[in-house]
Amino acid sequence: MKTQVCIIGGGPSGLLLSQLLHLKGIDTVVLERQSRDYVLGRIRAGVLEQGFTELMREAQCGERMDREGEIHEGFELSDNGVMRHVDLEKYTGGSTVMVYGQTEVTRDLYEAREKLGGVVIHNVEDVALHDLNTDTKPYVTYTLNGEEVRVDCDYVVGADGYHGPSRKAIPADVLTEYEKVYPFGWLGVLSRTKPVNPELIYAKHDRGFALCSLRSQVLSRYYIQVPLTDSVEDWSDEAFWDELKKRLPEDVAARLETGPSIEKSIAPLRSYVAEPMRWGNLFLAGDAAHIVPPTGAKGLNSAASDIYYLYHGLVAHYQNGDDSGLDSYSQKALARVWKAQRFSWWMTSILHTFPDNLPYDQKLQGTDMEYLFSSEAAMTSLAENYVGLPY
Amino acid sequence: MKTQVCIIGGGPSGLLLSQLLHLKGIDTVVLERQSRDYVLGRIRAGVLEQGFTELMREAQCGERMDREGEIHEGFELSDNGVMRHVDLEKYTGGSTVMVYGQTEVTRDLYEAREKLGGVVIHNVEDVALHDLNTDTKPYVTYTLNGEEVRVDCDYVVGADGYHGPSRKAIPADVLTEYEKVYPFGWLGVLSRTKPVNPELIYAKHDRGFALCSLRSQVLSRYYIQVPLTDSVEDWSDEAFWDELKKRLPEDVAARLETGPSIEKSIAPLRSYVAEPMRWGNLFLAGDAAHIVPPTGAKGLNSAASDIYYLYHGLVAHYQNGDDSGLDSYSQKALARVWKAQRFSWWMTSILHTFPDNLPYDQKLQGTDMEYLFSSEAAMTSLAENYVGLPY
Repeated sequence: MKTQVCIIGGGPSGLLLSQLLHLKGIDTVVLERQSRDYVLGRIRAGVLEQGFTELMREAQCGERMDREGEIHEGFELSDNGVMRHVDLEKYTGGSTVMVYGQTEVTRDLYEAREKLGGVVIHNVEDVALHDLNTDTKPYVTYTLNGEEVRVDCDYVVGADGYHGPSRKAIPADVLTEYEKVYPFGWLGVLSRTKPVNPELIYAKHDRGFALCSLRSQVLSRYYIQVPLTDSVEDWSDEAFWDELKKRLPEDVAARLETGPSIEKSIAPLRSYVAEPMRWGNLFLAGDAAHIVPPTGAKGLNSAASDIYYLYHGLVAHYQNGDDSGLDSYSQKALARVWKAQRFSWWMTSILHTFPDNLPYDQKLQGTDMEYLFSSEAAMTSLAENYVGLPY
Repeated sequence: MKTQVCIIGGGPSGLLLSQLLHLKGIDTVVLERQSRDYVLGRIRAGVLEQGFTELMREAQCGERMDREGEIHEGFELSDNGVMRHVDLEKYTGGSTVMVYGQTEVTRDLYEAREKLGGVVIHNVEDVALHDLNTDTKPYVTYTLNGEEVRVDCDYVVGADGYHGPSRKAIPADVLTEYEKVYPFGWLGVLSRTKPVNPELIYAKHDRGFALCSLRSQVLSRYYIQVPLTDSVEDWSDEAFWDELKKRLPEDVAARLETGPSIEKSIAPLRSYVAEPMRWGNLFLAGDAAHIVPPTGAKGLNSAASDIYYLYHGLVAHYQNGDDSGLDSYSQKALARVWKAQRFSWWMTSILHTFPDNLPYDQKLQGTDMEYLFSSEAAMTSLAENYVGLPY
């Protein structure tokens, strides 16, 4: 098989890039290890930056998102039961975020790819990347139904997540990995209940952080900070709802609609960046190169900024023979990635309880919150990061 | 002896309060353990917030400061040799800081106290505070030339520094102490040389932090971050200058005028807050209640905000019988103290090398600097803190 850009990974990043390039006449093949149903079954983030929604519209995939997604002009910050509003629109001069589940984004992208006859190959095994940094063109091999297939291409894009083969194809002496592990996880519950609040509530509490999020007006997503030693079996639905209520303002807890969990899982919190994001003719994007803790919802949005730079770099290459975008890809993408890492770390550090924190550090954490609500500049800084820094 | 307010400590805070109260007809006695020459020999900070300079003028002590002090509209931030300017005046809408040594402030205050016949008693020993939280009025005892003296008063102000007797007079079960110790110190050198730069240079460097400060156009003050295990004897003048140069931009290092040190000392970096700042008829102010690392110059300025609240509280009490200012003193003073603590911690943490930092944390630290220079909001936040948050 021959293509111009071989994209490894059929999650939202890979599909979005494939769709964008297709519309510019650039041929792609997308290889995905899982079935389509499996990919669509993954429960992920739901807060999209404006840059992301604009890319979706440019990819002609924004129609349902614009119809069903919810524009959020702010969110709530609760500090031990006292809730205060963060007005994103006011402090950014008009920017907002869109609440629309990653599952829905992926579904829309699959449908768009199908409609245009895009090549997305599922259930591929043994994906391997070859000749990434040689004088000849690279190729990718995989097995499907026991048969080995070879894809010849100009470029390989690794959008295959943290565990995928792409980053691992870069020699260890070329790659630098940066990592920070947090001493807690998030226990998340998805339930078919009306969300307790129209906007998200980020709740700092002495018992631990909690988040009230949503996927739609009938689908709620709640999280509570738990020790890394906890497992899902330790938490009955009842225990989860009880603990969540304790961390929310009383009036919010009183109106919380509970119900059976339709998904329940614990995710550890972690920060990770791999540098560089380009090696020869391989470009990494999204989770393949960087992971953020979910506080502040920068995971999918950081992937989108990679796709933005990569898309424009590839289009300039194929349309004008201009390689400057591809040559500066790693540097540009990483500059924004690190800023999103910084913000995610900051949101995580001001909202969670850290078992090893000194009493002094706990007071500083409370002061951070006080300062935030006393300073237009601090609030503007939070808001500009939350809605997404410019590409 | 009888007075209205007995002030323990003849440093700038105690003298300033004494002078301000005197001008409102409120009688004070200032007790100082050291001689005047000793107090004036201490080398301390030199960057004054506008709130501080306004208090000095209100105390009729601003004349020489306004004549000899230097208005600084900004400072330089160097990141591994690349220097960028922080425009305080622009980002605060017109605020600046004043560079005028603490020694000079103290000298002006002594002269003013003398001129008005203020009672400042030096070389007092065995200072003890009595009946601070009883139905009767408090009193202070001390020994001078072997004789015990008793000062009866309405209120006691503890402006006697971290090691003074005032805070120690508060029972342990009433006081909560918050502390954070940093794994490094500052080696400081004072020299009779022309300052290398008209404005301060805060220099982040892989070898450690450095600061180019000044007391006047003929008196320079330089600092370098050193391990806590170092002692002054480890550092010849030559070794100090060599190391300083390595941490500065090349062109700055090239024009650095060196000379013999006239003072050289190592100060460990520490954050400390004691709560509450009032117990009965005792009020703590300045270092007696809180210490900051010197990065960002908030030590003396935090003391000044305590004095501001205390001054207004005492005047309201004596002039109008209104105790609300005194009753809210601890809460108001601490709210601002903690914000200055937060800023000092932040300035310290972005500029120093931390021996235990993960490579990830080092990258975040660099990103903090990048973000700062890419965001008006972040720069405004830095500037508003540096010139001093409102009282």
